[in-house]
Amino acid sequence: MSPNSENLRFGIIGAGRIGKIHAQTICKVVSNASVIAIADPVESAAQETASKFGIPHCSAHFEDVLNNPDVDAVAICSSTNTHAEMITAAAEAGKHIFCEKPIAYDLSVIDSALAAVEKAGVKLQIGFNRRFDPNFHAVREGIAAGQIGAPHLLRITSRDPEPPPPAYVKVSGGMFFDMTIHDFDIARYLMGCNVTRIFAAGAVLVDEEIGQAGDIDTAVVTLFFENGAIGTIDNSRKAIYGYDQRLEVFGSGGMLQSLNNTPHRNVFSGAGGIISAKPLYFFLERYMDSFIAEMDAFVKAVRLDQPTPVSGADGREPVVMAIAATRSLKEKRPVEVSEIR
Amino acid sequence: MSPNSENLRFGIIGAGRIGKIHAQTICKVVSNASVIAIADPVESAAQETASKFGIPHCSAHFEDVLNNPDVDAVAICSSTNTHAEMITAAAEAGKHIFCEKPIAYDLSVIDSALAAVEKAGVKLQIGFNRRFDPNFHAVREGIAAGQIGAPHLLRITSRDPEPPPPAYVKVSGGMFFDMTIHDFDIARYLMGCNVTRIFAAGAVLVDEEIGQAGDIDTAVVTLFFENGAIGTIDNSRKAIYGYDQRLEVFGSGGMLQSLNNTPHRNVFSGAGGIISAKPLYFFLERYMDSFIAEMDAFVKAVRLDQPTPVSGADGREPVVMAIAATRSLKEKRPVEVSEIR
Amino acid sequence: MSPNSENLRFGIIGAGRIGKIHAQTICKVVSNASVIAIADPVESAAQETASKFGIPHCSAHFEDVLNNPDVDAVAICSSTNTHAEMITAAAEAGKHIFCEKPIAYDLSVIDSALAAVEKAGVKLQIGFNRRFDPNFHAVREGIAAGQIGAPHLLRITSRDPEPPPPAYVKVSGGMFFDMTIHDFDIARYLMGCNVTRIFAAGAVLVDEEIGQAGDIDTAVVTLFFENGAIGTIDNSRKAIYGYDQRLEVFGSGGMLQSLNNTPHRNVFSGAGGIISAKPLYFFLERYMDSFIAEMDAFVKAVRLDQPTPVSGADGREPVVMAIAATRSLKEKRPVEVSEIR
Amino acid sequence: MSPNSENLRFGIIGAGRIGKIHAQTICKVVSNASVIAIADPVESAAQETASKFGIPHCSAHFEDVLNNPDVDAVAICSSTNTHAEMITAAAEAGKHIFCEKPIAYDLSVIDSALAAVEKAGVKLQIGFNRRFDPNFHAVREGIAAGQIGAPHLLRITSRDPEPPPPAYVKVSGGMFFDMTIHDFDIARYLMGCNVTRIFAAGAVLVDEEIGQAGDIDTAVVTLFFENGAIGTIDNSRKAIYGYDQRLEVFGSGGMLQSLNNTPHRNVFSGAGGIISAKPLYFFLERYMDSFIAEMDAFVKAVRLDQPTPVSGADGREPVVMAIAATRSLKEKRPVEVSEIR
Repeated sequence: MSPNSENLRFGIIGAGRIGKIHAQTICKVVSNASVIAIADPVESAAQETASKFGIPHCSAHFEDVLNNPDVDAVAICSSTNTHAEMITAAAEAGKHIFCEKPIAYDLSVIDSALAAVEKAGVKLQIGFNRRFDPNFHAVREGIAAGQIGAPHLLRITSRDPEPPPPAYVKVSGGMFFDMTIHDFDIARYLMGCNVTRIFAAGAVLVDEEIGQAGDIDTAVVTLFFENGAIGTIDNSRKAIYGYDQRLEVFGSGGMLQSLNNTPHRNVFSGAGGIISAKPLYFFLERYMDSFIAEMDAFVKAVRLDQPTPVSGADGREPVVMAIAATRSLKEKRPVEVSEIR
Repeated sequence: MSPNSENLRFGIIGAGRIGKIHAQTICKVVSNASVIAIADPVESAAQETASKFGIPHCSAHFEDVLNNPDVDAVAICSSTNTHAEMITAAAEAGKHIFCEKPIAYDLSVIDSALAAVEKAGVKLQIGFNRRFDPNFHAVREGIAAGQIGAPHLLRITSRDPEPPPPAYVKVSGGMFFDMTIHDFDIARYLMGCNVTRIFAAGAVLVDEEIGQAGDIDTAVVTLFFENGAIGTIDNSRKAIYGYDQRLEVFGSGGMLQSLNNTPHRNVFSGAGGIISAKPLYFFLERYMDSFIAEMDAFVKAVRLDQPTPVSGADGREPVVMAIAATRSLKEKRPVEVSEIR
Repeated sequence: MSPNSENLRFGIIGAGRIGKIHAQTICKVVSNASVIAIADPVESAAQETASKFGIPHCSAHFEDVLNNPDVDAVAICSSTNTHAEMITAAAEAGKHIFCEKPIAYDLSVIDSALAAVEKAGVKLQIGFNRRFDPNFHAVREGIAAGQIGAPHLLRITSRDPEPPPPAYVKVSGGMFFDMTIHDFDIARYLMGCNVTRIFAAGAVLVDEEIGQAGDIDTAVVTLFFENGAIGTIDNSRKAIYGYDQRLEVFGSGGMLQSLNNTPHRNVFSGAGGIISAKPLYFFLERYMDSFIAEMDAFVKAVRLDQPTPVSGADGREPVVMAIAATRSLKEKRPVEVSEIR
Repeated sequence: MSPNSENLRFGIIGAGRIGKIHAQTICKVVSNASVIAIADPVESAAQETASKFGIPHCSAHFEDVLNNPDVDAVAICSSTNTHAEMITAAAEAGKHIFCEKPIAYDLSVIDSALAAVEKAGVKLQIGFNRRFDPNFHAVREGIAAGQIGAPHLLRITSRDPEPPPPAYVKVSGGMFFDMTIHDFDIARYLMGCNVTRIFAAGAVLVDEEIGQAGDIDTAVVTLFFENGAIGTIDNSRKAIYGYDQRLEVFGSGGMLQSLNNTPHRNVFSGAGGIISAKPLYFFLERYMDSFIAEMDAFVKAVRLDQPTPVSGADGREPVVMAIAATRSLKEKRPVEVSEIR
C-alpha cells in the first residue's frame, strides 16, 4: 500500500484464540484499519469470525488471503510451526506482516524468513504485545527519560494462574520458549540493550506430569546485560492467587516498579484482615490494552512508512535467549549468549 | 420492539459529548444493538458522528428520530432542560427510552414525564452510570451479600479535577444538582434505601467567581438513611491531584472501600519519596466501563422485557435530595426529605 | 525547679493504666526525667508500680506527693472527676503539671483550675497525646509548611475496636466527651484554628445497651472552621477489623492522608485475595510513641522554661466542642460554638 | 547461673555502636536482665556507656568481665576478628554467650570456638537479629504454619542506603561476608532448610573505589534449597530511596511478602503524584525491635535452660554460604555448598 492511504486492509491467517482477538481489535477499535479476509484450515472457525465481524472474504486456504490484491497486510495467527513459512509467503506476495511470537524455535528457519522480508522490502512486526502494556511501557519511558539513572538491577516476576495441559507442554518447545520468552523480550525492551550471559535454574514443583513431559514448571533465570546490570526472571506455571505480572528496575537514581492490575480497586477490612483484589486472572484481560496498542502501532508504521516498533531482529533475540537458557539449565553452567547468537 | 429480537435499533437525540459516547459505545461495543438515526439541532454535529460510525439517518430535528418506525429505542442526550419534553414525546411515539440525568430540576416536570412513560408502557432508564462502575458495583454486591453486616457509616469523596467555567456554573442548577446528584444516587444505590434527612454545609474556597455566580465549590453533606446509618458526601470543584472518586461503607461486619483508578500501576521510589500514579484525570476515562455497562443493561432489559436497573423513580429521588440539600444550605438547618418528596 | 537543671523529678498521682504508662515512659525512656513518688488511693497499685520501676516514695495519699519538696512536677493520672481539684492543689504546691484529658466536663470547674495555674505561674500541659503521634504530627508539619495550600476539607475517622462496658458508658460523660474529644483536639491542631459551628449526628447501631445508658455509639460530626474549611469526624464504638485511626486534609495544593499503623508490613496473596495486616488493635500499641513524645515535650518545656505544647486553653476548647456537639445532637440543629465558649 | 534465677547479669565486651545498643536494650527494655560490667580497649568508650546506663564495673580489659564472678553472660560486641577468641575465653570462663555475627571468616576458627562452647556446656546465641524482626518473623510463622503450602520461590531484596567507606570495604571480608550474610541467614530461617548450590553474580556499579578495593557493590545470588525451592538475593550498596529490606516467598498455596517499614503512614496527593514515605533509613531504626527481641530470647533461653534460637551451627552456615558465593563469583560457575561445608 502507499503511505497515508485511508485504511489498512488486513487479511488474517488463523482464526484461533489470538486470531479472533486481532480480528475484533482491528474491526472494532483500531483506527484506519479493517479486516477484509480471513483464512483457517478449519473453515468453520474462519466463517464464524467472518460472520461475527462482517469480514467479506473467508477461506480454508491461507493462499486465498495472500492472493487477494486488496489485502495490504496480513496478521499471522497460525500455529508457531507455520510462522516462518507464512512470513516468507506473505513477503513474496508483497504484504506487510504482523506475526505472532515466536517466529520459530530454530534460528536458521528464522533467518531465512527474515531474509525473505528483507528482500521484499515489506514491514514486519512481531507480536511481543507486552511492550505495549501501559504499565511496562511507562516503566520503559521512565528509564529512557533517565528517571532511575543508570540501571543496576532488574527483577521480573511472571507467573501463570494455571499450568497448561501436559499434552500442550510436550509441543510447547519448553517453558523458556513458551512462557519466559515474553520476559526475555521485556528484559531487552526495558534495559534498552542485549544480554551477554544467562544462567538458568529450573525445577518441577507444580506438576509431576510436566516433568515427565521433559519440561520444568518453576524457573529463575539470571541475566547479565551489556550495560553491566544484572537481572532475574522468576516463573511459575501456577500462582494460586492468579496471573502475577510484576517487575522492578533499580538504578542509581531510584527504582521503578510495576504492580499487578486488578479487576477493581476495592478493599475489604474484616476480622480476617485487610483484603484487596487478586490480579486480573487471564492474559486476555490483563493484556487486552496491549493487543490494541500493538496493532495501532503496526498500522501507523505501515501508513507512515516508518520502522515497526518490534522488528524481525527483536523477534529473533528472545529465541536466542531461550536457547541459551535451555542450554544453561541442561549443562548447569552460565552460557554466553554469543555461543548461540 | 418485541422481546428477544436480534438487535435493538437506537436513535440518538443530541450529538454533544455524551451523545457521541453513547453512539460509539452502541456501535462498537454493546452487543445486540445498533444506531440507525441521530439528530442534533446543530446538524453538522449529527453528521460528523453519523459519518464516523456509519449511522444511516441523520437530521437536525429530533422528531425525525421519533417518527422513524425502525427506531426501537432512543438515547436522550440533549441539554437537561429538554429531557422531560423528549421523554414525553418519545413515550408517545412508543419508543423505549434511555435518558441522561437529571430528568429535570422541577419535580412536577419530572412527574408529568414519568406519567407519560407509565401511560405508554415503554421502558425508561436514567443515565446514572456510576452504578455500573466495576468498583462501585462490586461494593454494592458485597453489601447486598452481607459482607459488612448492617451498614452504619457511608463516606463518599467526589472531587473534580477542575471547576467548570463560571458561565456554566450559572446554568448548572447549582453544585448539588450538577455534581452531588451522582453521589446522591450512589448513596441510595449502595445503602439500598432512601435518605430521610439531609444537612448540607457549603463554602466558596476554590474560585470566587463561582460564589459570585451564586453557587458553592466545596461541600459536605450529611445523610440520615432509613436504615439508621449516617453518611457524608464531600465535594470539591478542584482537586489538584486529579479526579478523586473514593467511597467507603462501614458496618457491623467490616468495611468496604473503593479507591481511585489510575492509568497504570507503577511506583517510583526516589530521593523524594515513593510516588505512585494520580487518579485517572477525566470522567470519560474513569467511568468509560460504566457507560458501556449501563447501555448493555438497558439493551438487555428491553430485549428480555425486564425492569430497567435505574427506573424513573430512581431518577427522581436524587433531584429530591438535591432540593433538600439546597434548602438545608440556605436555611442552615437539617431538612427532612419528606418536606420535599 | 530551676530551668536547665539536670533532671525533672516527677510525682505521679494515680497508678491506674495511664499512670503506669507514664511511670514506665518517664523511668525507662524519657531523658532528663525521673519518678520519685507515686500515690494512689489503692495503695497496692501504687506499690506495685513503685516496685516495678524503683520509685522510692509510695503513698495512698496524693498530698504526700505534693508535699514532697523534691518533686518538681506531677503527672495527674487520677479519675477525670478529680483532675481539676488536683490541678489546683498541685499549682498551689508550686508543682509543674502534666494532666490527663479532659480537665473536667464543666467549664466553670475548668476555669477555676486554670486560674489557679495562672496564679501559681507553673507549667501546665494537657495529655492530648495524639498530637505527638508521628503520623498526625507529620501531617500538621506538612500543613504548617504549606504543603497542601489552604485547607478546604478535613476528614477524621476514629473507630474503637470494642465498645466499653455499659457501666463505664454511664459515667463516661457521653461519647463526645469520652471518645470524640481526642478528634476535636486533633481537628484544632491540624487546622491551626478554632471551630465556629458544629452539627452532630448520632445513632445507636452497635449495642442497644449503650442507648439504654443514654449514649450513642455511632456519630458523624460536621465542623465549620474559622478558616472557612469544613470538617467531619466519624466515630464508631466497634470496628470489627480493629482500631481505625485515619484522617485526611484536603486543600488547594493537595491532600495529606494518614493511614493506619499495622503490627507488620506483610502481605499474603492467596486464593481468597490479597490480605494485609489489620490496624494495631489497642490504643496503647497504636499511640505508645505519642505517650513518650508528649512527656519528652513536657520535660523540655519545663527545663527550658518554654510554653508547653498543649496549654490549659487547648485543654478547655475540646470540652467546649463536646458540649456544642451534645447540644446539637439533642436539639437536632447546628450549634454556634460561641453559644458555649 | 542457675535457671529461673531472678535476673541475668550481663557483661558487655566492646562499647562501639552495637555494644551501646545492647547495653541500652538490656538496661532499659529487656526483662529479667541487667548489665553489671562493660569493657572496651578504648576505656573512655566503656566509661561513657557505663555512666549513661549506670553500669557499675568498667574496664579496658575484657578479662575483667570474664573474671567477674557475678557476670552470668557476656555479649560479645568487639570487632569480628576477635569474636572467636572471645567466645573461647568466655566459654572457658563458664559464661553464657551472645556473640555478634559473623563468628569468623574462617571455618576452622569457627569450629574451634564452637568446640570450646560445646565443651563448656554454656549457651551460645549468634546475633542474626533479623530473624526477630516482626515482619520476617511473621513470614516464617506463616510458612511454618503451612500458609503458603510448599515453598517454590524465595526473593530477598536487601539494599543499603549508602556504601561504607572504601577503607571499611577493604577489611570487611567482602560484600557476601559483610552484607549478604544476613540474607543467607534469613534465607535458611524462612525456608527451614539448607542450601545445596549457589550461583553468584556481581558487579561494580555504585562506586569504582569499591571495585578498586577488590569488592563488588551490586549482587544477585541464586540459591538452590534442599527442599527443591529456588531463591534469589539481590543486594546493592546504595539505594537512593533508603534502606530497602523486602522479601517474598511463593509456594503452592500462595505468597507471603514483607514490605518496607516507614517512619509514618502518611500519603501526600499532589500535582506530582501520590507520594508516600521512604523506608526507614538506617538499620538501627529499621531493626531496633529485633535487637530487643533477640536479647529477650537469649535471656529466656538461658533462664529456662532451653536451646537458643540461633545456635553456633546457625552462625557457621551463613559463612559457608558466603564462601561458596565468593568462589562462585570468582570462578563464574555454580558452587556446591558441600564443596565447602
